[in-house]
Amino acid sequence: MIKVGIVGASGYTGVELVKLIACHPNATIGAVTSNTYKDQSLTDIFPAMRGFENLVCEALDIDALAKKTDVVFLALPHKISMEHAPRFLERGVKVIDLSADFRFSNAKAYESAYQTHSAKDILKKSVYGLSEIYRNQIKECEIVGNPGCYPTSILLPLIPLLENGLIRTKGIICDSKSGVSGAGRSLSLAAHFCEANESFTPYKVGNHRHTPEIEELLSLHAKENLHITFVPHLLPLTRGMLSTIYVQALDTVAEKDIRKTYEKYYEQEAFIRIFRKDAFPQIAYVKGTNCCDIGFHFDESSKQITIISAIDNLLKGAAGQAVQNMNILFGLDEKQGLDIIQGAL
Amino acid sequence: MIKVGIVGASGYTGVELVKLIACHPNATIGAVTSNTYKDQSLTDIFPAMRGFENLVCEALDIDALAKKTDVVFLALPHKISMEHAPRFLERGVKVIDLSADFRFSNAKAYESAYQTHSAKDILKKSVYGLSEIYRNQIKECEIVGNPGCYPTSILLPLIPLLENGLIRTKGIICDSKSGVSGAGRSLSLAAHFCEANESFTPYKVGNHRHTPEIEELLSLHAKENLHITFVPHLLPLTRGMLSTIYVQALDTVAEKDIRKTYEKYYEQEAFIRIFRKDAFPQIAYVKGTNCCDIGFHFDESSKQITIISAIDNLLKGAAGQAVQNMNILFGLDEKQGLDIIQGAL
Amino acid sequence: MIKVGIVGASGYTGVELVKLIACHPNATIGAVTSNTYKDQSLTDIFPAMRGFENLVCEALDIDALAKKTDVVFLALPHKISMEHAPRFLERGVKVIDLSADFRFSNAKAYESAYQTHSAKDILKKSVYGLSEIYRNQIKECEIVGNPGCYPTSILLPLIPLLENGLIRTKGIICDSKSGVSGAGRSLSLAAHFCEANESFTPYKVGNHRHTPEIEELLSLHAKENLHITFVPHLLPLTRGMLSTIYVQALDTVAEKDIRKTYEKYYEQEAFIRIFRKDAFPQIAYVKGTNCCDIGFHFDESSKQITIISAIDNLLKGAAGQAVQNMNILFGLDEKQGLDIIQGAL
Amino acid sequence: MIKVGIVGASGYTGVELVKLIACHPNATIGAVTSNTYKDQSLTDIFPAMRGFENLVCEALDIDALAKKTDVVFLALPHKISMEHAPRFLERGVKVIDLSADFRFSNAKAYESAYQTHSAKDILKKSVYGLSEIYRNQIKECEIVGNPGCYPTSILLPLIPLLENGLIRTKGIICDSKSGVSGAGRSLSLAAHFCEANESFTPYKVGNHRHTPEIEELLSLHAKENLHITFVPHLLPLTRGMLSTIYVQALDTVAEKDIRKTYEKYYEQEAFIRIFRKDAFPQIAYVKGTNCCDIGFHFDESSKQITIISAIDNLLKGAAGQAVQNMNILFGLDEKQGLDIIQGAL
Repeated sequence: MIKVGIVGASGYTGVELVKLIACHPNATIGAVTSNTYKDQSLTDIFPAMRGFENLVCEALDIDALAKKTDVVFLALPHKISMEHAPRFLERGVKVIDLSADFRFSNAKAYESAYQTHSAKDILKKSVYGLSEIYRNQIKECEIVGNPGCYPTSILLPLIPLLENGLIRTKGIICDSKSGVSGAGRSLSLAAHFCEANESFTPYKVGNHRHTPEIEELLSLHAKENLHITFVPHLLPLTRGMLSTIYVQALDTVAEKDIRKTYEKYYEQEAFIRIFRKDAFPQIAYVKGTNCCDIGFHFDESSKQITIISAIDNLLKGAAGQAVQNMNILFGLDEKQGLDIIQGAL
Repeated sequence: MIKVGIVGASGYTGVELVKLIACHPNATIGAVTSNTYKDQSLTDIFPAMRGFENLVCEALDIDALAKKTDVVFLALPHKISMEHAPRFLERGVKVIDLSADFRFSNAKAYESAYQTHSAKDILKKSVYGLSEIYRNQIKECEIVGNPGCYPTSILLPLIPLLENGLIRTKGIICDSKSGVSGAGRSLSLAAHFCEANESFTPYKVGNHRHTPEIEELLSLHAKENLHITFVPHLLPLTRGMLSTIYVQALDTVAEKDIRKTYEKYYEQEAFIRIFRKDAFPQIAYVKGTNCCDIGFHFDESSKQITIISAIDNLLKGAAGQAVQNMNILFGLDEKQGLDIIQGAL
Repeated sequence: MIKVGIVGASGYTGVELVKLIACHPNATIGAVTSNTYKDQSLTDIFPAMRGFENLVCEALDIDALAKKTDVVFLALPHKISMEHAPRFLERGVKVIDLSADFRFSNAKAYESAYQTHSAKDILKKSVYGLSEIYRNQIKECEIVGNPGCYPTSILLPLIPLLENGLIRTKGIICDSKSGVSGAGRSLSLAAHFCEANESFTPYKVGNHRHTPEIEELLSLHAKENLHITFVPHLLPLTRGMLSTIYVQALDTVAEKDIRKTYEKYYEQEAFIRIFRKDAFPQIAYVKGTNCCDIGFHFDESSKQITIISAIDNLLKGAAGQAVQNMNILFGLDEKQGLDIIQGAL
Repeated sequence: MIKVGIVGASGYTGVELVKLIACHPNATIGAVTSNTYKDQSLTDIFPAMRGFENLVCEALDIDALAKKTDVVFLALPHKISMEHAPRFLERGVKVIDLSADFRFSNAKAYESAYQTHSAKDILKKSVYGLSEIYRNQIKECEIVGNPGCYPTSILLPLIPLLENGLIRTKGIICDSKSGVSGAGRSLSLAAHFCEANESFTPYKVGNHRHTPEIEELLSLHAKENLHITFVPHLLPLTRGMLSTIYVQALDTVAEKDIRKTYEKYYEQEAFIRIFRKDAFPQIAYVKGTNCCDIGFHFDESSKQITIISAIDNLLKGAAGQAVQNMNILFGLDEKQGLDIIQGAL
């Protein structure tokens, strides 16, 4: 059994990790930490989490935690992750970091969007945890930078098309919509019920921090520097994310090329579902699962491709993919603990 | 492995049954039927149900179905259940009926609320499927009348108090609130998004069909005929039910008597959680689980007890309790396939 | 034109007052204050409030404000209202206070639920602003204690029955449900979108501060001290409140007595609508209006009456009734500025 | 007073018209019709519409209606409008049609998206009712084809840029999101509460009928045939629409050119609000108003412009703009009856 530490267990992502590991056949929770809710059980913090009366949050003590765990999930704000991660690695504990701190291979890109990076040597060793794409590297690594939710919903549909040279690298537009849980459990006016309910809001238009993360990865797979237009919006619902992505196919590309590419690229993937022609993902179809659904429309005359992708922002967009990465890291079947069957409602 | 048939698999309750049985370690789906969606897979009908592309709905053929199954769940409208149930029993197939047709022991009470009962001999043999209360009878029976959702949320908190003679039998008031999924997947103006959203609506005040069901059971356990006031309301949310129940304690009864009674009565129960003083159930805490949460407030001076109970109307209020009953019927651990961990969201 | 000051204009109640006064044919906004949003316009604070770019919030300066206004609405937390109200009255400015500070005639009752009352002489002069009931006293007064939202939804249906001696004074049960805007614009976990959405929550069971307010008023009209059971719940919607009230008719009382009493009592009332038999209020019917809808069910055999009342918590439950009181105070037609036609959605 | 007939008053758009005309200082309701709800009052159909107990729906009788009205609003399904409109015109009654039947100048475009047009001569005379753009033509006409909601939200921000030659005509992308009321009051699975709630759904990707309507108008103003990519999505909320529009500025165009153009073009417009830099529309800001809010982001390096526009789909997207057109048609101040102040909630 893999012994797991969950650092920052009292946020929405942290508690999803607790839930997933608690059900995992090959992993067990070694310890959970929360500075805010120190000495409270998960059931105290989240009464919905029945059965966790004895799982009590500790204050973070890296030495103590390292002794009890083979791997830690850091569900912390960026900057704080950066400080703690190296200390776990030194103690031989693998790290799956859910902040932005270890997602970039280019420290400068990170620094332009966030702040000075204080663990650049670790950053170099970290692997971007987009499981389907970096599986082989994740297998060998010590630290995973788990992708952002928006990037996951955008990279999974775009990478196969870019790698196969089917689309233009200029003019890619990503219109993304996220449920409110993406903003976390910290209070804010934007996430206040009466402000979010019955509204729909674009935010950080043109300057969301996920943009450089997306661009770095897309550029890598396109083998050229590319820039995208990315506009996130806030949906009046709790869980789920849908991205509508507009790209231009090369002149010689036909609809069947796109379809074949997707089907082949993701043929073996348990968590990716390619929709048939004229059927499209929606948030209800992925909520509660670790899946990414992908559908597309191809306009023959303009060669414009409209791609729809949907994920659960807390699962494939955060905790689910993190567990998938843990499975890879420890040589387990990737589906372990993630083989969730979602009902219709 | 128990071979299960799900008759009426395309409604919200039916599909919950499919999901639960698909995950059940000791049961397997023998066949699913839907006259409306004949020849379509569950994934076709509910794209959220990924992995069920090969589970195709058959039209109902009792002979064929009986050969493939040990037990059938009937997720059918009342009256139709009544016609089919006897024919399954004749063929040696056990029946768990989710309609109202086999819930009453008194055919007259049924007939006054519904219509002529055409299978009264079967009705006599059927056992009311409130698992925690009728476990012993369910073990031995051939047909279970699975309780309504409102009755489940009201009977579980009231039966212990009535059996122990702690409360008055007159003046019991049940103010219940249900999510819209309780109305099923059939279209109606009340369940039209723009009508239900941002509203809250009492309905069938004074004449809901669950009233006689509740009264029959409460009377049985109180050992006297009693009448209640029951007012259901529609909440603008998908899943969940909460009942606020007002009863009068006898003069000699103290708060600790109530607490002790609950704790003892439900001590061994995996699906019932008694809240500590000053903490109360809410829908978010039970959504997605087979649990019934119960909390109460005792007013010393007036001896008024306010009981709050919460369930997921589709699980403990329907499909979950039906599976719990199947477990009992087949001598399995009651928690099998129902040991769902719900996250915070 | 009545010159109006709105103190605390940046909360949900304050901004409703701004909107109502801005449309009022006989009143004009003299000044608005907000310490938090000083020097910002209403449009800055609430971009939905278009056309208020020039209405800038001042910090509270009582002397300055008194010069510009005939009446002030205090949309402040309790305790703070108590400090300011006397100073406006000294300067000849009438006060309509929306906090709890001037609602009680019995200072002890106030003090047991809130804190020490520092303006008891003013409290004695204040009139409870339940417009339909205290119209005559409001006409003559200088300071109105505007009722709480829960009390409004409960008192309006109960006072006629108590005054006419139709119901028992013991065992009155009020099961109330409120939209989240009742919690105001201040951030809290309970009003965080992901916590309130898709849930339904009882709170302050047995000890909500509106209980003594309701009891004082009911006792006054029943001419005896009475106690009620009051349980508030939080609905996952923005605006609106519905109370389901359970009372016992005296043995000699028939359904038609109740109906006749309501119809006569509220015959002349523009803002009260009595529903016909078997039809019941719902939140969607009152949202956006200053109305209180009332319907009831009478159970002949048990003499139990179930009363349903619905209001918009921000209008009849707060800002709307406050403006109605201003109209009374200044001898205007009560409907002025409140003759809102609500659409179906 | 203008005497108004509302044909099809029992749908969501029809009842909005009733509400607007009832409050209009220069118009009065001559008659309302509904075949479905014949002989029922508006209050019967929509209990939220208090005060309309005497406004009873008639079955449609064109002769009778023509005698009582100066203008009729046709809130009917397309094809049916086409049959009735000519008969009103013959009788000297002006027509504001809210279906698609009189929106196109090119009958072929209409026929390719809808069906054979049986009143082509009338179609030629009809004016497209985008009030801000076709004000002068509307003044003189007899029949207005009121724009679709999606087209309104897209044309208002794009026409100024196209007329001034600031953007490329190729590659325009419109990612639009609508509340569920856009689907009307007719029952459908997509508008069933449990299906729409907590989800978000793209639909008719690449083939929505509003596409040719948008393209015809844009082409006219661009003075060249252009094609757009239009993807509508369904939001889990009742009222409101937001379009995120992606266009490419010409190389010589700077941010200030865009801003100046918008400000000048809409300088005199009461219902259009241009947002300052870095501020963006959201649905809550326009809900309940006849306004179109427009904001934009300009990316200097790529010359990509992201435009956000928001309207209330039932007002500026339907009934509100229809009343605005009536005001124009009858020489009234355009704001009459539409000067609604929306509150913060």
